[in-house]
Amino acid sequence: MAVQREAALAYARTHQNVFLETLKEFLRFPSVSTLEQHRADMETTARWLADYLRSLGVTRVNIYPTDGHPVVYGELITAGPNAPTLLVYGHYDVQPPDPLDLWESPPFEPTVRGERLYARGAADMKGQIIGVLAAVEALIRTGDLPVNLKFMFEGEEEIGSPHLADFITRHKEMLTCDVSLNADAGIMGAEEPSITYALRGLAYFELHVQGPAQDLHSGVYGGVVHNAAQALAELIATMHDEKGHITVQGFYDQVRPLDEEERQALQRLPLDERFFLERTGAPALWGEPEYTPVERVGARPTLEVNGIIGGFTEPGVKTVIPSQASAKISCRLVPDQDPEAIYECLRRHLETHAPPTIRWELKYIVGAKPALIDRKSRWVQALAQAMQTVWNREPFYKREGGTVPVVAQVKEILGVDSVMAGFILPDADLHAPNENLHLPTWYRGIETYVHYFCNLCT
Amino acid sequence: MAVQREAALAYARTHQNVFLETLKEFLRFPSVSTLEQHRADMETTARWLADYLRSLGVTRVNIYPTDGHPVVYGELITAGPNAPTLLVYGHYDVQPPDPLDLWESPPFEPTVRGERLYARGAADMKGQIIGVLAAVEALIRTGDLPVNLKFMFEGEEEIGSPHLADFITRHKEMLTCDVSLNADAGIMGAEEPSITYALRGLAYFELHVQGPAQDLHSGVYGGVVHNAAQALAELIATMHDEKGHITVQGFYDQVRPLDEEERQALQRLPLDERFFLERTGAPALWGEPEYTPVERVGARPTLEVNGIIGGFTEPGVKTVIPSQASAKISCRLVPDQDPEAIYECLRRHLETHAPPTIRWELKYIVGAKPALIDRKSRWVQALAQAMQTVWNREPFYKREGGTVPVVAQVKEILGVDSVMAGFILPDADLHAPNENLHLPTWYRGIETYVHYFCNLCT
Repeated sequence: MAVQREAALAYARTHQNVFLETLKEFLRFPSVSTLEQHRADMETTARWLADYLRSLGVTRVNIYPTDGHPVVYGELITAGPNAPTLLVYGHYDVQPPDPLDLWESPPFEPTVRGERLYARGAADMKGQIIGVLAAVEALIRTGDLPVNLKFMFEGEEEIGSPHLADFITRHKEMLTCDVSLNADAGIMGAEEPSITYALRGLAYFELHVQGPAQDLHSGVYGGVVHNAAQALAELIATMHDEKGHITVQGFYDQVRPLDEEERQALQRLPLDERFFLERTGAPALWGEPEYTPVERVGARPTLEVNGIIGGFTEPGVKTVIPSQASAKISCRLVPDQDPEAIYECLRRHLETHAPPTIRWELKYIVGAKPALIDRKSRWVQALAQAMQTVWNREPFYKREGGTVPVVAQVKEILGVDSVMAGFILPDADLHAPNENLHLPTWYRGIETYVHYFCNLCT
Repeated sequence: MAVQREAALAYARTHQNVFLETLKEFLRFPSVSTLEQHRADMETTARWLADYLRSLGVTRVNIYPTDGHPVVYGELITAGPNAPTLLVYGHYDVQPPDPLDLWESPPFEPTVRGERLYARGAADMKGQIIGVLAAVEALIRTGDLPVNLKFMFEGEEEIGSPHLADFITRHKEMLTCDVSLNADAGIMGAEEPSITYALRGLAYFELHVQGPAQDLHSGVYGGVVHNAAQALAELIATMHDEKGHITVQGFYDQVRPLDEEERQALQRLPLDERFFLERTGAPALWGEPEYTPVERVGARPTLEVNGIIGGFTEPGVKTVIPSQASAKISCRLVPDQDPEAIYECLRRHLETHAPPTIRWELKYIVGAKPALIDRKSRWVQALAQAMQTVWNREPFYKREGGTVPVVAQVKEILGVDSVMAGFILPDADLHAPNENLHLPTWYRGIETYVHYFCNLCT
């Protein structure tokens, strides 16, 4: 094992440029799952990924259609029945690239500047998928893969994985495994390896407000009807107090309190106010003052306005009273909150606060449960040991603010935990212009996976 | 005079279809002053209007360039020095037609359905311009014009007439007159002639809010930064109380109170709550409860959100914290409010209410002073008498909620009052889809102008 480990690491080091070129090819597909105009690109991307798996010798490769975008599946069951079986999860879809004018190079033309590769999906998470597959390639080209692997790559993570639970349920037997390796996570810094043991859930809504039957002249009718854009703003303003607490009744009822031991552990993370101020460029931080920033992003739920629109929004002047306005509103949830219960809370809040001068509708778009993982299991500890070897320091343990719906789904349907792996850096600008992958960290990540797979069999 | 009056009225009646065809030609130009892509259309429209004036025998016709869209000018000084000289004001620009999908026929393809002509600008105010010119044509084709007329047609009314004051100032001598006839007003109903004696002013702003330096992932940073869309909504919500009063300090300071006599007079107008409910289709009326709806739209100032935008507004799901959001906010003003003083009030309000977690900017876009006109003057009474003749009933006197910046400008620069004429009906859907002109009322309006010009010389 030790001999193969070294051979695989050597392979990984000498093939860094090959892996990079493969990743660039993957990144050129604009696989934006939320935009209808990219439907054909999603198919093309899935086909490319399936072909790439086949080129590695992966068997049973198949593109499974869903009611949305397809799932790419494949297996490498060569390590024998005594070796553990891991279900490697990834997603080949990406966020929309807008606002386009803020990109320094086009989002779908991967460009290396300095130590980083810039492209939509470079970090989240095409780079992470290719990272795992690079380690797999290094191991199988230099000997035998020490573990059994199943690959499940979906195309709908960025829209909340609406069809993945159904796919997992329908292919429960095929997906049987000991643990899931979820490669969609990050580490705290290039020199700060870390393991995520908690994820926030998500509840995504659309709120529509209708005032008058149609847009009206603000001179002729200004003063007698409730402006829909104003009414929507007034409703949104009822959802937080001035300290950043969510004022929707019942919202916090199911939040599991942080115990003192975990607060102490989180306190040790090098993520202070200044860290968040620098990362965000905000003039001042905001949010519940009883919690530290790192607690707020990991262990506290949120309610955000992801988008708002109403009335005349082009350049110039139009003196109109908008009849309609709408907002996309989403909540990040923590254990033990439930997205559908949160929908009910918000609906009741609107029933209480909406005035009779407007009509409104709250639509439930998508939801995902939060997750907490046992950080003392062998699956997590083998990863911690791999990081320790590559970075020569012990990893931090942290809660992640983002949502990976599949983690709750594989727990619920397959009954297995997920190990959160992945090497995204905090300044990767996920979901934003100039998303990027720090290449030295990426190469370390590939070596970490080589160690990880070997560690699991020793 | 009586003989010519009858001949001109007969001409107006037999030429209704000719006037209608001329109007349709005028309406086919998409002269949307606020949209850059229609700049060439504005020029074409001005040339068409100048040519049309020349075809009526109007002299000194000229298209005067401004720093924005041009002014079309011409004169008919044939009635001798003892006859009064009227400056006829109009605007050939129109509002943007969006939302396009709500139009039953295309906005720039004038279409007659039933008694109405549908097109953007049909009522506001290409129809009004052609109405005055039809009466002029009827008089000069059947004898002599009893008054001297100057025509000033601008192309920037719908964006707040930013260059008209400069034009009037630079051509003060050319524009000398006894009174201005402003044809941009309406009447209360097809069977309810009315004369507007007050207009609201306007102050138009843009409020920009910046939170974090760029859009952020709501999972990674949700809970530590102030969402720009939420912050903007919260600021907007501070501007009214729940009864519809504007809570910007000092906002009402310069409002001239309504005296009891005027309140009584306004009370007699047939514009009750039900009227406004039916016209607007709102589920309930809104606004300062101490004032009647007719007082609120005529004699009380407003603060409206004309448009709001921020974050992800396309279909689908994006879990982003918007870094920027902005709103177009405008106030309708009443005597003696001043747009620049109102800007200061709102700026101070934001200084007081904006939290340190965001940056903001309030831009002053355009402003216009409110106006009050002496309803007992000969200029207004000659119009009242013309309406009495055509409708066989006394007109109502009312305040208008809209803004006609030129009224304050001609008062200030030329020292003359404006008579508000024009025959727009309340259900003309100004600034909205399916804007329309009620043709029977339009024909009555043409006859009213014939009587009006004759009345001024008897």
